[in-house]
Amino acid sequence: MGKEFGWHRGLPADPGEQLKHMAPQPLTADREFAPLSRAELRARLEQVGQERYHHRHPFHLMMHEGRLTRGQLQAWALNRYYYQSRIPIKDAIILSRSQDRNFRVEWRKRIVDHDGGGGRDGGIERWLRLSEAAGLSREVVQSAEGVLPATRYAVDAYLDLVRNRSFLEAVASSLTELFSRDLIALRVGALKRHYPWLSGGLDYFTARLSEAPEDAKFAFEWVAEHACTRQEQELAVRALERKCDILWAQLDALYFAYVNPAWPPPGAFRPDQA
Amino acid sequence: MGKEFGWHRGLPADPGEQLKHMAPQPLTADREFAPLSRAELRARLEQVGQERYHHRHPFHLMMHEGRLTRGQLQAWALNRYYYQSRIPIKDAIILSRSQDRNFRVEWRKRIVDHDGGGGRDGGIERWLRLSEAAGLSREVVQSAEGVLPATRYAVDAYLDLVRNRSFLEAVASSLTELFSRDLIALRVGALKRHYPWLSGGLDYFTARLSEAPEDAKFAFEWVAEHACTRQEQELAVRALERKCDILWAQLDALYFAYVNPAWPPPGAFRPDQA
Repeated sequence: MGKEFGWHRGLPADPGEQLKHMAPQPLTADREFAPLSRAELRARLEQVGQERYHHRHPFHLMMHEGRLTRGQLQAWALNRYYYQSRIPIKDAIILSRSQDRNFRVEWRKRIVDHDGGGGRDGGIERWLRLSEAAGLSREVVQSAEGVLPATRYAVDAYLDLVRNRSFLEAVASSLTELFSRDLIALRVGALKRHYPWLSGGLDYFTARLSEAPEDAKFAFEWVAEHACTRQEQELAVRALERKCDILWAQLDALYFAYVNPAWPPPGAFRPDQA
Repeated sequence: MGKEFGWHRGLPADPGEQLKHMAPQPLTADREFAPLSRAELRARLEQVGQERYHHRHPFHLMMHEGRLTRGQLQAWALNRYYYQSRIPIKDAIILSRSQDRNFRVEWRKRIVDHDGGGGRDGGIERWLRLSEAAGLSREVVQSAEGVLPATRYAVDAYLDLVRNRSFLEAVASSLTELFSRDLIALRVGALKRHYPWLSGGLDYFTARLSEAPEDAKFAFEWVAEHACTRQEQELAVRALERKCDILWAQLDALYFAYVNPAWPPPGAFRPDQA
């Protein structure tokens, strides 16, 4: 299945090996042994990223290889805006669950980064400008009409995770930012090269190049300090896997609706409407 | 896009017309006029079904034409089990929101139908037997490991709808049962004809042939009586649309993962593992 595609790159060629690699790891007794060292925990998290982060997804590979149409990039910008628009809400939920002032002071930076205010733009405004550069009106994007239902479900599942799972898992689910800098650096170059008409709208990504690593550093240190037992460490790893699933599912839905077989569901955005 | 496929059958051939048909209807002022008659409301709901119910989905068309492999049917049974397993929970949430004893007495029939008990099987047990007939072990199915994340998100969005939207919308979202009898009748014949090895597992559907119309009749009568204003009627129609989206998204995810491009996400069921 899809062996020729890049998201299997770097994984063993034998499908059996691949499955062992990708199958969810059961929480069996041998995982309740000694806690991992900080370096081992970091390595486990990095491994999740290598296997499951959406830099491997065929939609992103097409994007970076210049193989997306303008309409497909519009669908991406529109759907991803729904995700962006929920990020400060997600962070406010996490903020609301912390009784530690120092934590809250650190974490609120994320809300400021996304919402802006006090004369500064934030990530949401920058994403709207990216959407406009792609040829969409900000009103259409902000209305969220035409967003794929599957996008909503996945994004809402993220809010559900940070609201209803343990606080440790809520924080750990943000650790995809450990991997986002590399993806964004690659993307900015690729977008400029392949879609020069988008070049005026890339401020979102250049801002994230510095914001994301700061956020990831704080979140990793916090998780490493607060996941004391092996079981807690495993919960953190799982939370990161669940978050990777959420990002991946959004691209699956985009690919299905707009690349192949290219069947947007009833009521969804159609590029030729833009 | 996918014009050759059956889910566009019966819709106008001109894509512009099609879009008008399928675009979500805004809640504009002209909808706040006089309430619809019972017959008009019924017609509006039927129209939603004709346009958005998942009988049109390519995955179902393939199923009914005998074009699914055993592995694809396994993936369907496994993922749909997750949906089935949440139905009594969904109905218990609705039950918990009603202060009307008569309503609760009627509605609890649904929970009994699905959960069984007192020596009777229910829909969930019957779905497990269907899964076994498809070649899956009930333990694998019940564990829900390997269920597509997108299936979980869509099903959980259904629970979210009945928990957090108005009670009228929660009840109205069940009105897809207005359309399920015809689909099931078609399906039972098609499954027997094309996949004779499944024949021993079809009790789920034969039971639903009588259960679903009873449930739909009660729910429609209740909605017709309690959606008094035009705005309430429109909310009921929208809730039915949202439910159709939820069913549709589940099949989109199956099609993407197991038919075309056939890329199950990391960690998901792979037919050759069964």
